[in-house]
Amino acid sequence: MEKFFYPESTAVVGVSEFKDNLGRNIISNLVNFGYEGKIHAVGPRGGKVMGHTVYPSVLDLPDIPELAVILTPARFIPEVLKQCGEKGTRYAVIESAGFREMGDGGEKVEKELLAVTRQFGIRFTGPNCVGLVNALNGLYVPFVALPSGYKKGHTSVMAQSGGIGFSLAERLNHPGLGLSKFVSMGNKLNIDEVDYLSYLMRDPDTKVIYFYLEDFKRGRDFANIALKGSKPIILHKSNTTALSHTIANSHTAALAGDDRIVDAACEHTSIVRVQSLEEAIRAIKGFSLPYLYGINLAILSRSGGHAVIATDVCAKYGFNLPELDSSILNEAKKHFRAGVIKLGNPLDLGDIYDLHVYSKIVEKTLQQPDIHGIIYIHVSHMMVEQENSIEVMKKLAELSARYKKPIAVVLEVPESLRQILEEKMTYPYFLEPAEAIEALALQYRYANHQEKKLSAGIRDTISLKNGVNTWLRTIEQEGHQPLLHQALSLLDRVGIRTAPWRMVTSFSEAEKAAEKIGYPVALKVVAPFLSHKSDQGGIVLNIENAEALQRQWKQIHSCFKSIIGIVLQKMIFASREMIIGAKRDPAFGPVVLAGMGGIMVELLQDVGMRLAPVDEDEANKMIEGLKGTKLLGPFRGMKTAHRNVIVRYVVEVSRLIHDFPKIQELDINPIIISDDGHDIVAVDVRVIVGSS
Amino acid sequence: MEKFFYPESTAVVGVSEFKDNLGRNIISNLVNFGYEGKIHAVGPRGGKVMGHTVYPSVLDLPDIPELAVILTPARFIPEVLKQCGEKGTRYAVIESAGFREMGDGGEKVEKELLAVTRQFGIRFTGPNCVGLVNALNGLYVPFVALPSGYKKGHTSVMAQSGGIGFSLAERLNHPGLGLSKFVSMGNKLNIDEVDYLSYLMRDPDTKVIYFYLEDFKRGRDFANIALKGSKPIILHKSNTTALSHTIANSHTAALAGDDRIVDAACEHTSIVRVQSLEEAIRAIKGFSLPYLYGINLAILSRSGGHAVIATDVCAKYGFNLPELDSSILNEAKKHFRAGVIKLGNPLDLGDIYDLHVYSKIVEKTLQQPDIHGIIYIHVSHMMVEQENSIEVMKKLAELSARYKKPIAVVLEVPESLRQILEEKMTYPYFLEPAEAIEALALQYRYANHQEKKLSAGIRDTISLKNGVNTWLRTIEQEGHQPLLHQALSLLDRVGIRTAPWRMVTSFSEAEKAAEKIGYPVALKVVAPFLSHKSDQGGIVLNIENAEALQRQWKQIHSCFKSIIGIVLQKMIFASREMIIGAKRDPAFGPVVLAGMGGIMVELLQDVGMRLAPVDEDEANKMIEGLKGTKLLGPFRGMKTAHRNVIVRYVVEVSRLIHDFPKIQELDINPIIISDDGHDIVAVDVRVIVGSS
Repeated sequence: MEKFFYPESTAVVGVSEFKDNLGRNIISNLVNFGYEGKIHAVGPRGGKVMGHTVYPSVLDLPDIPELAVILTPARFIPEVLKQCGEKGTRYAVIESAGFREMGDGGEKVEKELLAVTRQFGIRFTGPNCVGLVNALNGLYVPFVALPSGYKKGHTSVMAQSGGIGFSLAERLNHPGLGLSKFVSMGNKLNIDEVDYLSYLMRDPDTKVIYFYLEDFKRGRDFANIALKGSKPIILHKSNTTALSHTIANSHTAALAGDDRIVDAACEHTSIVRVQSLEEAIRAIKGFSLPYLYGINLAILSRSGGHAVIATDVCAKYGFNLPELDSSILNEAKKHFRAGVIKLGNPLDLGDIYDLHVYSKIVEKTLQQPDIHGIIYIHVSHMMVEQENSIEVMKKLAELSARYKKPIAVVLEVPESLRQILEEKMTYPYFLEPAEAIEALALQYRYANHQEKKLSAGIRDTISLKNGVNTWLRTIEQEGHQPLLHQALSLLDRVGIRTAPWRMVTSFSEAEKAAEKIGYPVALKVVAPFLSHKSDQGGIVLNIENAEALQRQWKQIHSCFKSIIGIVLQKMIFASREMIIGAKRDPAFGPVVLAGMGGIMVELLQDVGMRLAPVDEDEANKMIEGLKGTKLLGPFRGMKTAHRNVIVRYVVEVSRLIHDFPKIQELDINPIIISDDGHDIVAVDVRVIVGSS
Repeated sequence: MEKFFYPESTAVVGVSEFKDNLGRNIISNLVNFGYEGKIHAVGPRGGKVMGHTVYPSVLDLPDIPELAVILTPARFIPEVLKQCGEKGTRYAVIESAGFREMGDGGEKVEKELLAVTRQFGIRFTGPNCVGLVNALNGLYVPFVALPSGYKKGHTSVMAQSGGIGFSLAERLNHPGLGLSKFVSMGNKLNIDEVDYLSYLMRDPDTKVIYFYLEDFKRGRDFANIALKGSKPIILHKSNTTALSHTIANSHTAALAGDDRIVDAACEHTSIVRVQSLEEAIRAIKGFSLPYLYGINLAILSRSGGHAVIATDVCAKYGFNLPELDSSILNEAKKHFRAGVIKLGNPLDLGDIYDLHVYSKIVEKTLQQPDIHGIIYIHVSHMMVEQENSIEVMKKLAELSARYKKPIAVVLEVPESLRQILEEKMTYPYFLEPAEAIEALALQYRYANHQEKKLSAGIRDTISLKNGVNTWLRTIEQEGHQPLLHQALSLLDRVGIRTAPWRMVTSFSEAEKAAEKIGYPVALKVVAPFLSHKSDQGGIVLNIENAEALQRQWKQIHSCFKSIIGIVLQKMIFASREMIIGAKRDPAFGPVVLAGMGGIMVELLQDVGMRLAPVDEDEANKMIEGLKGTKLLGPFRGMKTAHRNVIVRYVVEVSRLIHDFPKIQELDINPIIISDDGHDIVAVDVRVIVGSS
């Protein structure tokens, strides 16, 4: 991928002298923003553009361009690429639109294009994009004539929409931020989000990675790279409402819309998910400060009101405000003019008019070992303070770097002063306390996750292959989806306890089984045509004795004809239910989910989700994250549920879906937890298998 | 209050020639920003400041100032005010700090100050504030030397923190916005939030009202004015975490933290509650557009990505995107250059390079009757489009005004172009789609609420005074809090059904009562020392027959000595529970709350709250807003609960707490709903009475 961003020569194909020719804009961008390589122009009409000869074809160029930027009508592109291939060019940016996004005709051209690129081994970005930028070497190939180059920096912006990419790049023009690489990904026909991400993870000039995506081609691989890498990734995944997934068959699967899987992947990998450009910039600002390694903050403010608001927001994000050492408070007191302000944390500096004192107080605060970071609210409405303000800002940069603790600076100053300060500052500032504290919360969560990742061992991935493989072979031979007794037996194989059950085919068998298991029992008809039993009949609950059993047995056989057998199962009575399920997502692969059953899942969609497999730690976090997690504690006279059993079940299910690609979906619903917390058994389960 | 903002002459007390004298700053602000009245300077050292003679005392002034701005040390203020009073001045802004917020000494001065102002009938803002501004006539009396005056406009800013007030006023420097009045309210010793609000409701130059409050002095009155008025109010109430309320005794009261009452008041009155300056500005922008009178929007965008994000956000806020008329789509198609974009709503204008076409499409869209507003996303990265962009912006203003529908314009342009457009624009713009759509959602909600208010009749406030007054007299005579049987009888009086019960004092009475009511029954000990029964024993449930009744009767009498009697109550079994409660807030007065009982309230604090009294409509909204509201529908085999009964109970409870100031708290928990939905009965209730 290196060549896409650092080509020694670049040819622009589709250039003419016409005033509104878009290829011309590319040439002018390259010239204006000081591209360090050679520039070639290509176009059938010839002529000269900004001093560059327009050659009729790539084949006519005096040397071999490393990168070709193509902006001709779609139908000509296969031919242009052929010429590129013959010339020896191996990298292309295809900006033209008119491919699959337009339907039939476009798809044909797309096929030709893919054939040519395969033949010559050409890799390309796009099509249907505005191009890419490397702010560091002046490689600007978007077809719009940009008014100015972007500020150089360490954030790379990968966007499946040129408009969003520009908007974000524009916003990086802020102290301490700036752009490294920018790609408008377009249709992702050849190079997709995973290729870009793996390159940026290696790129030494990229420290923060932003992605705007409207779909995932390879979500699983994306998540894996994020998990292994050590650079923060900010993701804006849009297009969340017009989901085009098939209607899921099983209950838990239906609850899990695609968008929740994106959330699950972010949870797993500490990708920061954002919903707006503003949130994205807030996160980028956060990541450009030293990391916060604890939850104790000090708030230093020249305005009491802003300090009060900051306190509210700190509480919301779980930050503490420990007491400040008396030496800090005394230092402040010494310089108070009117003595009309109380001392504490937040520390109100509104009564100190000597700005030099501020950096002294900040330094002392950074020295206090149990303070992990500072919210510094700089309020100044007097122009006389301008010079001093600049000096304070400089000093804060030094101190934050020296003590390796973040100082999130809030500037509450008139626009004119803000502009002056902005020019002199070398690190980001925030526009109000809420923004600063949210930014710290984001990077704290990330830093925390990274630390845990380092300390965690390698995941245990042994699973009970043999038993499950035998089971899968049987199902395949029978040629239909697993029936209830088969699904229950799968759970028994992997150590998930089921409510005692027997498959019976005659009344005498049933009578014996009921005797053994103990009344009351339930009868559940097993037949391939009954897919979701409770909706279609075929279930009788609460059979108290042999007489009732016989009555129901007859009743069932008069209603249902070609049945395979009946599952007779012990009735279990308890008030707590859970569900554990798994499914396979087209982009993210296997996912596991768990939730409190009954009204919690029906009313509140109270389900946790993760990419599978999960280890015990992650499974525990899923359970703890449920709104109804308290139900598992001692609750209303019920004892604490054996958490380790539930966790083990979640881990097992996550391994089943991960290790056995033939399992498409699995839905255990309900799992019943006895009031004493000891017995945790699955009562019903559905499994869907398919080709892997 | 008029005189505070439009005094014909203003005296500043506490002025000297010293360079860092803060009173000097006030004089310079008044001079620099063109105050239209007469300026007087007062200070013991005399001299001249900016051409104004400094008189030694107010008494020495050549005429009577209408407004005195005082910034002397706190201890001199009573004397200064006395001189003002003698001179004839009746309005003062006291900016000095050093009063109650500093403790003992301050409180003494405060008393003197109040005595003097009472004597002369002086009204004052502050103390402990930065002063006030009327941007419209140049009355700038803050003691900080502001770099420039604020843009004139129609938003008034009332802030219980000077810093927050300045920050907001600063942000009003935006097209179509601007400042009318600004007050830093300080300690609100004489004039409080209610006085300011009632003035601003009448002030013809104020169209949008913003309040930053750290506490409420008279929340109830504030809410009442908001309810009756027809100007949008934006409220930032902070200080939500360090609540200093006494620990509430009853269950529902404890769930209702003070901050939820503020939310309840906002729900009631359509006050827009915000949590940050950014949200405040977003709301103010929204209110400066024509109102949205429906939920159908059109998205017109030059960037596909921004349109996708806008669609996500529209879905989040419940907006529809109806199909656009074919005439609109055809108009767009006619001008497409490459023909590579699909037509629909959102309508992607990215392929049209002739900006004149845009206003034509916008106008046709406004003409479509089922479109209520437009999100117009103006993306432009080419400087050549600058002139056209300005023209489009002008045209949009005309069209929005002509068709009385909001056009929320998003500017996604480089900073340099943004600044140029900003100078020419006469209405606000937004920085990204999310901001624009949220602003419309806010004003839609407000406009909708206002419409309903107008169409609603006068509230029915008849209540069963006599029965309740008799009941209250009995309680007062007995001299202790109502006991269980008394509390139950209060419900019976106001028509809230209770599970059948009898107060019994002998076993034979108990036996007869149980026979009549029907087993199983519960026994509940009645004694003044048992305040919350289930925690302290004294309750036996599920007594199945006379034999068990006798056993338990003996058991109770061996455990409890001086008891008044026992409530024998029919056991009610059903799975659905509710709670209805009421309490009295120091600032907002009576509030009513209702929620689903059981785990919904314990786990999720699923409670709705409103200022009392509520009518049927409002009570219905409370119930509909509950997370567990579905439990009342047909749910898991249970029938729909009789909603009108629940609503009536909520209305009754809200009237009880409103009409009878002696009732301090009331907590019905649980109310049980039978599975068939018919029987809705209270099982337990606590009432706390006190002096009104």
